[in-house]
Amino acid sequence: MRATRQKERYVIDTDRLWRRISELGEIGRQEGGGVTRLSFTEEERAAKDLVASYMKEAGLSIREDAAGNLLGRRGGRSPDSPAVLVGSHVDSVYNGGNFDGPLGVLSGIEVLHVMEEQGIETKHPIEVVAFTDEEGTRFSFGMIGSRALAGRLPPEDLIKYEDGDDVSVAEAMRAYGLDPERIGEAARPVGSVKAYVELHIEQGQVLENEDLPAGVVTGIAGPVWLRLSLEGETGHAGATPMNLRRDSLAAAAEIMGLIEAEASATGTTVGTVGQLNLKPGGINIIPGRVEFSLDLRDIDEGVRDRVERRITEGAGEICRRRDVEMDIETLQRLAPAPCSELVKSAVERACERVGIRAHALPSGAGHDGMQLTELCPMGMIFVCSKNGVSHSPDEWSTKEDCAAGSNVLYWTVLDLAGGG
Amino acid sequence: MRATRQKERYVIDTDRLWRRISELGEIGRQEGGGVTRLSFTEEERAAKDLVASYMKEAGLSIREDAAGNLLGRRGGRSPDSPAVLVGSHVDSVYNGGNFDGPLGVLSGIEVLHVMEEQGIETKHPIEVVAFTDEEGTRFSFGMIGSRALAGRLPPEDLIKYEDGDDVSVAEAMRAYGLDPERIGEAARPVGSVKAYVELHIEQGQVLENEDLPAGVVTGIAGPVWLRLSLEGETGHAGATPMNLRRDSLAAAAEIMGLIEAEASATGTTVGTVGQLNLKPGGINIIPGRVEFSLDLRDIDEGVRDRVERRITEGAGEICRRRDVEMDIETLQRLAPAPCSELVKSAVERACERVGIRAHALPSGAGHDGMQLTELCPMGMIFVCSKNGVSHSPDEWSTKEDCAAGSNVLYWTVLDLAGGG
Repeated sequence: MRATRQKERYVIDTDRLWRRISELGEIGRQEGGGVTRLSFTEEERAAKDLVASYMKEAGLSIREDAAGNLLGRRGGRSPDSPAVLVGSHVDSVYNGGNFDGPLGVLSGIEVLHVMEEQGIETKHPIEVVAFTDEEGTRFSFGMIGSRALAGRLPPEDLIKYEDGDDVSVAEAMRAYGLDPERIGEAARPVGSVKAYVELHIEQGQVLENEDLPAGVVTGIAGPVWLRLSLEGETGHAGATPMNLRRDSLAAAAEIMGLIEAEASATGTTVGTVGQLNLKPGGINIIPGRVEFSLDLRDIDEGVRDRVERRITEGAGEICRRRDVEMDIETLQRLAPAPCSELVKSAVERACERVGIRAHALPSGAGHDGMQLTELCPMGMIFVCSKNGVSHSPDEWSTKEDCAAGSNVLYWTVLDLAGGG
Repeated sequence: MRATRQKERYVIDTDRLWRRISELGEIGRQEGGGVTRLSFTEEERAAKDLVASYMKEAGLSIREDAAGNLLGRRGGRSPDSPAVLVGSHVDSVYNGGNFDGPLGVLSGIEVLHVMEEQGIETKHPIEVVAFTDEEGTRFSFGMIGSRALAGRLPPEDLIKYEDGDDVSVAEAMRAYGLDPERIGEAARPVGSVKAYVELHIEQGQVLENEDLPAGVVTGIAGPVWLRLSLEGETGHAGATPMNLRRDSLAAAAEIMGLIEAEASATGTTVGTVGQLNLKPGGINIIPGRVEFSLDLRDIDEGVRDRVERRITEGAGEICRRRDVEMDIETLQRLAPAPCSELVKSAVERACERVGIRAHALPSGAGHDGMQLTELCPMGMIFVCSKNGVSHSPDEWSTKEDCAAGSNVLYWTVLDLAGGG
């Protein structure tokens, strides 16, 4: 597959992109090798300043909106027509990698830089955005910039969420030089954005398994987070025959088997038990109480909710049969965000142009595009992640794959902006 | 069943027994309602002193051996013939109950007290013993008195085990007025004990389910304790499709299902996963590593080891199929102690005498009798435990059931001692 790539359609300056990824990765560099750039900190400021300098080199007109989103704009032949928006974020998790976020911002700038160098005109203006606080690491909230741009961030939310030092988003914004009362000014009116497209690392292993550098994202899965609490009966491990037990962990094990089977059956759903605590926890004591989490996702809300129902009903039957009480608490329920046909088809055409088989795959992780679905058509391009690792210093995508994805982004943006 | 009991064979003074259970339960009484009497403490001393006063009332000749075991002896028509030994322990776990241990000691004294009152002679002498430190709560060792009496406690072990304040068993013995160097003097020669019989609460729910006050113990199960460590691959819960996962918790869940099925299949084995820890523990992260314990018991060592082999082989297959690495560590492996035919048949006859159906059941928990299997024929009588609870202030057996069990003990001892 990789042998058939159309290298003549490779227009991106790969070395410049790669150098900028490295430079940006030095900001917030930790001793352990990872990168920490939380929102509204000196590190995020320094990262945005560096990104602004790249935007300037690319000939863009630069502004920062009321949410701190950094925007670089290139005009179009119809200057008042809706702009194509491209970008990602530059904040990170604690000790994260160089690619999650920066790759989308820097490849967006690179696309416009090449257009500028080659004198390419487009009908629609194009803007690159570096969104504020996508990760949610500091305030356990996240997607602050994209929420604001979509007009979905009431000022109350800025007071509600606080960091580990009890500093609210609003206080952090003020310290950063922004006025939280004016957050509404960041909102873009519906109709003002033609489409949003984001290049991002996959953070999974689908493309690696398909031996593809990039792929077409079908949608962003919406997670349901549940906490299941099972209450059976504590007992002596030696003195309680198997048929007299009300073992909450044995019930949990059977439910975990059901979760795996039901999620696997659809081919698209993912179900994960990532936390499990039991009591009392003695090696010779039957656990009377078990709590465990369930993270269930699909890009199709109907499929996801059907799987959820099968799991909760099946778990109920398992617990009834075992005389174990079950309680289910919903911790979070987000709607999936399907990518628009407009952007998906543009990405598919772009893949064909650069000679990459257009492989469709969902995004299991959340991204800024989720917030924009009511503002404009939205879509994403994924770049292959080495071993699927992200949120880690080991996060890696090869220079070759970043180049391939960025060229797909170039042709996608050109297509959407009516140029070429 | 209970209606057919032969009350004329009820010879025990139930009120005296019950009063003594309450009196002894006041020693080491905690605020929370439970009892704490650790070995070689003032509380154990006070408990043994009170027990000695009961022995004296019963007309027994009293001595304390080199291990601190308290012994009360009633002579027989053949004074030099092997003695029948009956008893249990008076130490407790932290915040334990009134019955685990004391019931066996006090019912033994009651048996001899009644014989004394009624002028019953036996061929063999009979001794009641209150063993030192059965529980192992203080030194994480346990059965100290019975090990010593069986000649299975080398002085080295007394130095090896320490309590939470770094006080060794030897040091605690010295502070208690015993000489650890002379521990060997507590050993009874083989042939000097005709049989050992212990009355104990069941600590399970078999008798309660059978609606029986007492039962015949078939043997004391030997536990194997394993720690299974599974190493799969950490991954993003959203970005990793089900078919690309190496989920160590999903593997553990399947293994737990196997453990339950294999243990249940024999009808006698019990298998318990009482501890489970996973990493990294994020709600949206596939667990890369899981460690869990397995407590596996049967009174038949061959059956237990066959079940263990099926579980470890099956777990190996599960992990190979899931591409998860597995490591198994053996933490403990104790041989089961089957009860002797001599004692079991005496208990069965005694049950018939008092009109209780002789229901056979294993002991899942460990008891002093395990240490005596090479010294003499050994057996046990279980008394019904309310809800199977023990090692708790809620530990309870009814006065009626304690009386029934003690009368079974009376006829068992009379049978073994050649009297009546």
